[in-house]
Amino acid sequence: MNTDKQKNDIAAHIIELEKTALEQWNNGNPSGFLQQSEQEVTYFDPFFEQRLTGYAELSAYYESIRGKVYANRYAMINPAVQINGNTAVLTYNLNSYTGNEVYKWNCSEVYVYNESGEWKIIHTHWSFVKP
Amino acid sequence: MNTDKQKNDIAAHIIELEKTALEQWNNGNPSGFLQQSEQEVTYFDPFFEQRLTGYAELSAYYESIRGKVYANRYAMINPAVQINGNTAVLTYNLNSYTGNEVYKWNCSEVYVYNESGEWKIIHTHWSFVKP
Repeated sequence: MNTDKQKNDIAAHIIELEKTALEQWNNGNPSGFLQQSEQEVTYFDPFFEQRLTGYAELSAYYESIRGKVYANRYAMINPAVQINGNTAVLTYNLNSYTGNEVYKWNCSEVYVYNESGEWKIIHTHWSFVKP
Repeated sequence: MNTDKQKNDIAAHIIELEKTALEQWNNGNPSGFLQQSEQEVTYFDPFFEQRLTGYAELSAYYESIRGKVYANRYAMINPAVQINGNTAVLTYNLNSYTGNEVYKWNCSEVYVYNESGEWKIIHTHWSFVKP
């Protein structure tokens, strides 16, 4: 059982991990999300007919768009971290700004604390707000 | 640590819980999902500008559409359950058939095994496939 202080520290750490990966992502670099994802990772975004399942599928996708995704700035809106045992569910809305455009996203990330003492992503779900 | 047999049993149970709630949902009845959701539940779907946070917000929404959502049949495609400790992440694609229309969804559910010995939903994310 984590104390409130421990939960707050975990939440802050998870948000920091996510922001670090997002900032790389916004510079065309998926390496942060790749390094943070576990072998068992599952993934949804609006561009696929079905779920991506496992690190090999996800990394093939991320590598295919390396250098192709850019954002000038972003706002992580109202992040929440739900901690239960060794699992942390991070949810937030994301506004991603590219030139004069803003793209609005719903984001869910499930992080698990692994045997190496690191928080890693086992599930990602990106979707458009009111598509 | 769960054995493979235990994990398979948990996965089957989670999928059964979800199907039971879905079948009620498809008859205009959100009670299954409401009964399965924890107080701390968070929720994304394509119709909101931001996340719904907590049971009160989610139940207000579900009650507002009670009797308004119907589907003739559905296909739960390729469900996967990732179990870590007391948490199970269920992901699947859903085809929902209404008359001649098919609606295609990505679905993520995070279930947690609570102190009462029940698996309950703490996070739901619905999104459209290729909107």
